[in-house]
Amino acid sequence: MAAPPNLIAAVDEARQWDRLMRMAQLGAIPGDGVNRPCLSPLDREARRLLIGWARELGLTVATDGLANLFLRHEGTDPDAAPVLTGSHMDSQPNGGRFDGIWGVLAGLEAVQAIREAGIATRRPIEVVAWTNEEGGRFAPGCMGSMAWSGFRPADSWDSVTDAAGTTFRAALEEHLAAEADLPRRPFGTPRPHAYVEAHIEQGPRLEAGGLDIGIVTGIQGSRWFTVEIHGRTDHAGTTPLGQRKDAVQDMLRAIAALNALTHDPADVLRFTVGRVEVFPNASNTVANLARFSIDLRHPDKDVLLKRGDAIPGVIQAALRGCTATVTETFHALPVTFRPEVPDAVERAAAAQGLKSLRMPSGAFHDAQFLVPLCPSGMIFVPCRDGVSHHPSEYSSPEQLARGTRVLAAALVELAGA
Amino acid sequence: MAAPPNLIAAVDEARQWDRLMRMAQLGAIPGDGVNRPCLSPLDREARRLLIGWARELGLTVATDGLANLFLRHEGTDPDAAPVLTGSHMDSQPNGGRFDGIWGVLAGLEAVQAIREAGIATRRPIEVVAWTNEEGGRFAPGCMGSMAWSGFRPADSWDSVTDAAGTTFRAALEEHLAAEADLPRRPFGTPRPHAYVEAHIEQGPRLEAGGLDIGIVTGIQGSRWFTVEIHGRTDHAGTTPLGQRKDAVQDMLRAIAALNALTHDPADVLRFTVGRVEVFPNASNTVANLARFSIDLRHPDKDVLLKRGDAIPGVIQAALRGCTATVTETFHALPVTFRPEVPDAVERAAAAQGLKSLRMPSGAFHDAQFLVPLCPSGMIFVPCRDGVSHHPSEYSSPEQLARGTRVLAAALVELAGA
Repeated sequence: MAAPPNLIAAVDEARQWDRLMRMAQLGAIPGDGVNRPCLSPLDREARRLLIGWARELGLTVATDGLANLFLRHEGTDPDAAPVLTGSHMDSQPNGGRFDGIWGVLAGLEAVQAIREAGIATRRPIEVVAWTNEEGGRFAPGCMGSMAWSGFRPADSWDSVTDAAGTTFRAALEEHLAAEADLPRRPFGTPRPHAYVEAHIEQGPRLEAGGLDIGIVTGIQGSRWFTVEIHGRTDHAGTTPLGQRKDAVQDMLRAIAALNALTHDPADVLRFTVGRVEVFPNASNTVANLARFSIDLRHPDKDVLLKRGDAIPGVIQAALRGCTATVTETFHALPVTFRPEVPDAVERAAAAQGLKSLRMPSGAFHDAQFLVPLCPSGMIFVPCRDGVSHHPSEYSSPEQLARGTRVLAAALVELAGA
Repeated sequence: MAAPPNLIAAVDEARQWDRLMRMAQLGAIPGDGVNRPCLSPLDREARRLLIGWARELGLTVATDGLANLFLRHEGTDPDAAPVLTGSHMDSQPNGGRFDGIWGVLAGLEAVQAIREAGIATRRPIEVVAWTNEEGGRFAPGCMGSMAWSGFRPADSWDSVTDAAGTTFRAALEEHLAAEADLPRRPFGTPRPHAYVEAHIEQGPRLEAGGLDIGIVTGIQGSRWFTVEIHGRTDHAGTTPLGQRKDAVQDMLRAIAALNALTHDPADVLRFTVGRVEVFPNASNTVANLARFSIDLRHPDKDVLLKRGDAIPGVIQAALRGCTATVTETFHALPVTFRPEVPDAVERAAAAQGLKSLRMPSGAFHDAQFLVPLCPSGMIFVPCRDGVSHHPSEYSSPEQLARGTRVLAAALVELAGA
């Protein structure tokens, strides 16, 4: 289905870029980066800016008990299930200007283009900003979409603390009080007809292939664990190695054993230890505590379950003198998108003469929690060198505008005449 | 040689304990610990307390260009080379109440007992508090004794910074300005006739053997290194393991190779990685920097030199995708004390009916930098469970008083009649 030409023309590359750059000022860090933690004053400022733009367009604004934010463009049938699009506005601590926020602003730009092109859709279109997708301030990520979809109860993370000791519940209550002027919806309502999320790829494939659009077919599963190795402090000069309970050395043994457990000659499995903390962390004292993170991902549910379930036992068996606790902090099985949304995205890209590729997502996204509720999918655009979660993260105004044009056309098709 | 009985009786167990407990209030932390960083306001407060006690006794006070502090008891021959005793007043960040400070207060108590017993010695006796033995705020440790003995130039550490970014030079200048009322001596003067340092053992041997006194025969050598592994940040979900430059994984390879290099079936060599820092330290981001410390010790100079010199090459060979920089931050060869001081300590312990053991020191101490200048030695007392560098560090009032009685008798013998 070819999109109306006036819709494509109405997507304004410069306007979208300008909004992105204005958002990037809220939490700007050196090297063109952004640090905008969820539920922070900066997050509230960004949301107020977005709400202002939405109200100028005539959209209505609502939130919910987890501060997910909804901007509604009305359909000719207000009772029809809406088409939902969006992403998130929080960033990694040392993050970039596009991850998440572009998906929200692309939704806004697409809706604005639809309105300016004078296109009436039967279904409403809603733009959503999910709370805490990154998990940078409060772990894990995707809390907003997990609670909204019913994947986890909304009070699951009440006692999770940030680095300053603030609980998620306290930060959320403060945030909701500051947005008490917004109407608050029950979770999961209105149930969407379809969900489309636009996002930078966060990988090198589209750029390497000279492609414009990634048609996301599914998202690999992720399991996160926090491991604590408990040993005993000893003086580095006096205690024989044979008498030590050295948390650093047992951490090494544990990670080496996990490397063996997760070894994959096909290099499809992703196993990452990205976070390590040692205490008391003094050069002349044997460590009595080593804490590290495990990020395990695989597109095959069976592999993810089998290898992930083996982690605690493998760690215990690897230890020499210490003890370990293993806590799973995130568990999302792989999802495959039903064909409706990927097909609509593919038709839109083809009609606009763009080069596209069907591909899975290595990163997790809020979209995976919408899968049980409605046909879902994602649109990827290339990002430079595949880099994300870093200030140097970059997609060009042209690349982003192409993605938004595809999004706009897909939304019009999904929302119907 | 038996000490005069009135000298032994004059060593006041309760007075020494009371002074230790008053010092322990300056920087007290939970669990009976102490955090008193060198050249801090707390350090100055502790030094003023010590100076007050010394002046009450009639001792004269001086400092030097590195803020080493000297309390002088005059001899019948004021021009004779003095006998020097002491230790340090700074603590580890999560330290105890006895490490260092007891050696200083034992010197004060011994001098007070000598004066109260009416014993005149030919040589002066000086009590010293060396600056920054621990290296807890500014690394490495032993700066005061290294500069005073000429082992390193006094400006060697000017640009070393603490965690807050303050340079050692700035902290030193501020400190010296606050002690401008004290006379300032040139380094290395007056050259001592002998040096005796009292210290808790920081190991389990004396307690396990039911012994009172350790007669320290020498100090093993220490080399410290800081290693930085430089890789590249990547998204944990999208980047195949084969394409990563993962600083955590290459750090593991480097430490595993170092474990092999330093393997010692006799368990005499000490190899410790006590400090580990990873950046950006996010669970879903491959680390681009891993920094770790190496603490290598051995009583045999040849082993220490050979294994230590091999470290950079072994690390380089172990890396898969990253690069490494290796910086040596401390290098002190093993020392063996000449017999004069250990023999005097042994005679004093035997004359008092105390059970003693000749033993090397696993920890380094300021004493090792005095070895080139004069006959030197140390007196160890047991500490509970061998624990030090921790709030639970403990020696009893009785154990400490026994050590001070041995120190007093040894000082009288070394200072001569």
